[in-house]
Amino acid sequence: MEAFVEKALLYDFYGELLTEHQREIYEDVVLNDYSISEVAAELGISRQGVHDQVKRVDKLLAGYEERLMLVKRFLDLKAKVGRIRETVSGCTADNLEEVKKTVAEISDSIMEEL
Amino acid sequence: MEAFVEKALLYDFYGELLTEHQREIYEDVVLNDYSISEVAAELGISRQGVHDQVKRVDKLLAGYEERLMLVKRFLDLKAKVGRIRETVSGCTADNLEEVKKTVAEISDSIMEEL
Repeated sequence: MEAFVEKALLYDFYGELLTEHQREIYEDVVLNDYSISEVAAELGISRQGVHDQVKRVDKLLAGYEERLMLVKRFLDLKAKVGRIRETVSGCTADNLEEVKKTVAEISDSIMEEL
Repeated sequence: MEAFVEKALLYDFYGELLTEHQREIYEDVVLNDYSISEVAAELGISRQGVHDQVKRVDKLLAGYEERLMLVKRFLDLKAKVGRIRETVSGCTADNLEEVKKTVAEISDSIMEEL
């Protein structure tokens, strides 16, 4: 997965667990791609301070993912729902029973992993 | 939802964010239904200490749910996957197009909410 997409997903899932200050810096630098200097000037803190907070948040987000694995679970789930959607969309009177079996299997595996 | 089921779900989702000490007490008292006195004796801490930790963990879990809403999202998702499973299971050559439409709609709404 592209690094930016992964960071955005991690932030999407765990951003609410950060402080408002951390969210502000991380959004500016990582998601909105402002330079460290710009953000430092805007918030009236040192460039080193901005840099440290970004690194700290990267670590926090990675730590949350290690424990809760929401991004991984989300991507698995998304793939499975996509497979159900595709399977049903290709359903005809001829393969109906097979489609039912496949959908039941995928649904069960989603339920088990939740 | 029954209070015990809700606590068990919250613990299942957010337990990894607690300390090992908190998990031990919470599992013993809330999930395995040992008495406060038993747990206090076993861990060599006061009954008040056990009581306070349980209350503290209840608050922490509620706080995580307020921010991340994983239990709510999980229950919504479970209901939707169940609806897909049921819809497909009742599919016949006659209502095939309708089933495809319904499954596409529910899948889309799952994807949007993830």
